[in-house]
Amino acid sequence: MILVNGQGSDTVSALDRGLAYGDGVFRTLRTQAGQPMWWRDQYAKLAADCAALALACPDEAGLLAEVCRVAEAGQGVVKIVLTRGAGARGYAPPAAQACTRIVLAAPLPPHAQPDAAVDIMARWCTLRLARQPRLAGIKHLNRLENVLARSEWDDPEIFEGLLCDDSGAVIGGVMSNLFWVKRGELFTPDLSQCGVAGVARTRLLRAALRHGIRTHVGRLPPDAILAADEVVICNSVIGVRRVARLDDVTWSPAGWTDTLKTALDDEVD
Amino acid sequence: MILVNGQGSDTVSALDRGLAYGDGVFRTLRTQAGQPMWWRDQYAKLAADCAALALACPDEAGLLAEVCRVAEAGQGVVKIVLTRGAGARGYAPPAAQACTRIVLAAPLPPHAQPDAAVDIMARWCTLRLARQPRLAGIKHLNRLENVLARSEWDDPEIFEGLLCDDSGAVIGGVMSNLFWVKRGELFTPDLSQCGVAGVARTRLLRAALRHGIRTHVGRLPPDAILAADEVVICNSVIGVRRVARLDDVTWSPAGWTDTLKTALDDEVD
Repeated sequence: MILVNGQGSDTVSALDRGLAYGDGVFRTLRTQAGQPMWWRDQYAKLAADCAALALACPDEAGLLAEVCRVAEAGQGVVKIVLTRGAGARGYAPPAAQACTRIVLAAPLPPHAQPDAAVDIMARWCTLRLARQPRLAGIKHLNRLENVLARSEWDDPEIFEGLLCDDSGAVIGGVMSNLFWVKRGELFTPDLSQCGVAGVARTRLLRAALRHGIRTHVGRLPPDAILAADEVVICNSVIGVRRVARLDDVTWSPAGWTDTLKTALDDEVD
Repeated sequence: MILVNGQGSDTVSALDRGLAYGDGVFRTLRTQAGQPMWWRDQYAKLAADCAALALACPDEAGLLAEVCRVAEAGQGVVKIVLTRGAGARGYAPPAAQACTRIVLAAPLPPHAQPDAAVDIMARWCTLRLARQPRLAGIKHLNRLENVLARSEWDDPEIFEGLLCDDSGAVIGGVMSNLFWVKRGELFTPDLSQCGVAGVARTRLLRAALRHGIRTHVGRLPPDAILAADEVVICNSVIGVRRVARLDDVTWSPAGWTDTLKTALDDEVD
């Protein structure tokens, strides 16, 4: 089921600025028994991303009602897309106007099923992310870099590709955020130059703080990961997954994935 | 009038990858008496941009027929948008499939009327373009940088904003390419790191070659422009326009705008 501005519809205006320029933001969230998980964080991130692009974020209660309306009864995924709406030709954003809201449900993908393997295989992508601090961290609709990176492999055994920026700093996965543990301390890339700062990442950082795990957010080279004791990726749909293999490098479980998974699951709200 | 995949329609699928990821390319071209101007170059650029993103470019004759079908009788503008089509969730591009084609007409904007003033005012934008060689030059649908840059001003007297990349090299206008003349030689920014290499730029470079004007394509700082004898912007809709003022700097006409305008007009298909 798809709701466009609250009405059942499977189309949007051909003049929508989301299509013309990628002028909008989105969220992909997990639902359970018809309710979104991590809603408070999801909405807060959506509102922050809208603010960064001067988009008028829809009212929380109304949006939540639409998410619940489309969500499947069991477990599932809901995607929310907000765009600056249909507009005249030209890059100039129109004076404040309501967003186009697209809210749609999809079944839980196989790799997000509760019984899916926690271990995944990853590879390095050759594409280097460009650094644009004005757009860094935002889950906006300009995702050609992700499309190009994801098209670098079609081996179904490879679950995720890892990306560096053009200065050589590790940024994260094509569709996930990246963490690693070294000597009991947690590391994750700084996303002030590029990348998407996902809600699972925010919650994991908060959980680590609550559990007294020392955390470092920084610009680090790929070697830092290769020297890690355990590497994980995360996002709102798959939760935490252990990177068992990255190209030719393999890791045996060191117990941290379960710790992080539990910490994330235990985060309230 | 809007044609979506050859059918009159004003909507596209809410699942289109053009909307989801900006996964597509576009062209904005001028039409005259129901025919596109510079069609050979426009189609060649569209095909090249499609190839760069591994999109299946539609057949030339069929696309031309659609452009002519929507074009207004007098002078006008036609926009062509090609996307990777509707697809399953996830960044992975589906196996080769036909593009979604959107072809729409719009009236000639005031600043593109034959009697519009040739002189324009411009400003420097504070936004710095990120350098992504994999996407540089392509007129793709990831245009948030242009939207952000264009939202830096709302003074209707300012026609265009000029942009540098994050290394400080001049790249061009928000919606146009940039040229300047110094001691009888023509300069234009190198677009191998970012920016859009428009058809008017290609034609102007070719015209300069034919007229024996020495041309330099390079990475140059803003100072290079301030020291120019004449500065122009160009695109397929407005043709060549002289930058009479750039923030506090003004230029008197040195005759080059007419030379370049005539050279561009004289270029045969």
